[in-house]
Amino acid sequence: GGGFRASEHQHSRYNPLRDEWVLVSAHRVKRPWQGQLEKPPPEDVPRWDPKNPLCPGATRANGEVNPNYEGTFVFPNDFPALQPDAPEPDDSGHPLFRAAAARGVCKVMCFHPHSDLTLPLMSLMEIRAVIDAWAELEAELGASYPWVQIFENKGAMMGCSNPHPHCQVWASSFLPNEARLEERTQRQHHSQHGVPMLLEYAEQEAQRKERLVVENEDWLVVVPYWATWPFQTLLLPRRHVLRLRDLCDSERDSLASIMRRLLIKYDNLFQVSFPYSMGWHGAPTGPHLQEDCGHWQLHAHYYPPLLRSATVRKFMVGYEMLAQAQRDLTPEQAAERLRALPEVHYKLRPQ
Amino acid sequence: GGGFRASEHQHSRYNPLRDEWVLVSAHRVKRPWQGQLEKPPPEDVPRWDPKNPLCPGATRANGEVNPNYEGTFVFPNDFPALQPDAPEPDDSGHPLFRAAAARGVCKVMCFHPHSDLTLPLMSLMEIRAVIDAWAELEAELGASYPWVQIFENKGAMMGCSNPHPHCQVWASSFLPNEARLEERTQRQHHSQHGVPMLLEYAEQEAQRKERLVVENEDWLVVVPYWATWPFQTLLLPRRHVLRLRDLCDSERDSLASIMRRLLIKYDNLFQVSFPYSMGWHGAPTGPHLQEDCGHWQLHAHYYPPLLRSATVRKFMVGYEMLAQAQRDLTPEQAAERLRALPEVHYKLRPQ
Ligand SMILES: O=P(O)(O)O[C@H]1O[C@H](CO)[C@@H](O)[C@H](O)[C@H]1O
Ligand SMILES: O=P(O)(O)O[C@H]1O[C@H](CO)[C@@H](O)[C@H](O)[C@H]1O
Repeated sequence: GGGFRASEHQHSRYNPLRDEWVLVSAHRVKRPWQGQLEKPPPEDVPRWDPKNPLCPGATRANGEVNPNYEGTFVFPNDFPALQPDAPEPDDSGHPLFRAAAARGVCKVMCFHPHSDLTLPLMSLMEIRAVIDAWAELEAELGASYPWVQIFENKGAMMGCSNPHPHCQVWASSFLPNEARLEERTQRQHHSQHGVPMLLEYAEQEAQRKERLVVENEDWLVVVPYWATWPFQTLLLPRRHVLRLRDLCDSERDSLASIMRRLLIKYDNLFQVSFPYSMGWHGAPTGPHLQEDCGHWQLHAHYYPPLLRSATVRKFMVGYEMLAQAQRDLTPEQAAERLRALPEVHYKLRPQ
Repeated sequence: GGGFRASEHQHSRYNPLRDEWVLVSAHRVKRPWQGQLEKPPPEDVPRWDPKNPLCPGATRANGEVNPNYEGTFVFPNDFPALQPDAPEPDDSGHPLFRAAAARGVCKVMCFHPHSDLTLPLMSLMEIRAVIDAWAELEAELGASYPWVQIFENKGAMMGCSNPHPHCQVWASSFLPNEARLEERTQRQHHSQHGVPMLLEYAEQEAQRKERLVVENEDWLVVVPYWATWPFQTLLLPRRHVLRLRDLCDSERDSLASIMRRLLIKYDNLFQVSFPYSMGWHGAPTGPHLQEDCGHWQLHAHYYPPLLRSATVRKFMVGYEMLAQAQRDLTPEQAAERLRALPEVHYKLRPQ
């Protein structure tokens, strides 16, 4: 080429999973930042707070009292965006005004009884219990609902209003946008190339290595070639797996291990409990359980907002909202930084 | 219907411009908020600050001294994400690793010499000058570049790092994602229905009225039927217009007027300088100037993050990033609230 260097020369990269592009302008990270600073998360979260509705023994908004749970704990979201029984919207009489019924269920799952813990500070056994609970919820709600979205909002910056370690599960009567998109792109790739897109991608990344963050016998984590968020990662199985419930015992253990290694690196990056939204995508469920979903590959997306430090985030605003996502360091630079970090949590390091 | 009420019953609505859905769960606005609070913008911005690189007479990062400008002022972005001369990326040798050249130009435009002003506090003549400068930049950069993205990030919450009233213009050698998307959907609508989608939509909204915020002889502003952000609006011409440069003299005046009315309502909503990202979309330029772009209709999107008050925003996080945007009040409720607000700015109201 004509002396092209990704870390110096802006360029676009294609995201085959979302059929869109990202603008990579790595030289831009040099500009000074005088904008908004984020508040670091509180360091003094009490282990147990009877006024926190997620704690064991606490009273929730609906008046129910939580059991004294000792592992994970699942309960219905008291302010659900999706309920099982909404009526069908009326016909608007015009194709530009299209509404559709949306039904579903929203649940909350506490990871642990202690409010002052997060996944990277939990034991492998405790993380394994979370994975089992995810797989169970996916199977239970996926028996009838076509899509079960498991996601974790971590940190106030990511709209999380409660420091207690937890995630949410929203099951819906419809395929949400992101699911529709990944359904389309993976189906197309499979019919063109005869192999699941993300299986082929994982094999390539395992060879190329420059975007690898952590790997083990069953899993790998990469900063995807098309990452938009500065330290975004993609967690991928090495074998073809459709859904969480399909993971065998040893794969669940190795998943607990790789999640913990990734999340410790995340916390170590800026020595702060690293905020992110993460979630699982797998083959659709409900009526789709009867269909051939071989083009799907199970994976988790991690979308963390921080860019330069514990207090300086990336803003996906003007140009990003109106034109195209833009990033300020290359995925390879981000992966290299994450790779170089220790796998012992900074809070647990001997002084 | 079976007793369906949009303000009570969750449902999905289709966005024909972006070919995606939004989940409307209006009952959700009732839940208490104990999450992150935003800092209101500073009230004491000095009118002139020689250390602010956007001020008249100030020195910029590259050492240049700004003229003592008295109206609008355009200069090159000192940290551009797009530069005119980046080399072509090398071929990765695999279809899942696709990069493309990205070239362009980034400019900054100050709206006014005073740092303590914003558009809603400026005179109609001053806003008209901004519109003329937009149209000129669009024509100048659009002579060669296929896309000229004009956008304003307003407020620290929207990643804006300088309180001085300004916008940005990024011109690119490619159609960004949002442009590609709107190109596809508008082209398809036009070929199916023989009329530009957003012209038909504006006519419908002018009749239906329930989502109207402000209107005049040439323009209307609606909370679109498919709005994702709580108080998102869409500014539409009544006649078929492809690009900013095509606006005649009186249309520019009426645009200044309707923008001012909208932005005063925005500020009055929570009695705060209302943060948002906004930007213009019109028919593509450069080589596309020679093509038939009759399916396009000029419009501006306003994406404001606030939900409940000056300090409580909507977080587009977990479910939104991984599945589908979700809103907590109906577009009709948002439009009604905006409509009811006075058209005199709260700061200029007689005590
Ligand atoms: O160029 P600015 O105002 O410094 O930066 C702001 O707008 C850009 C374009 O939307 C974004 O990429 C940045 O994240 C944001 O902070
Ligand atoms: O349900 P929560 O945690 O109260 O709310 C959070 O997650 C939801 C799902 O991503 C978002 O819609 C909310 O904006 C966010 O604050």
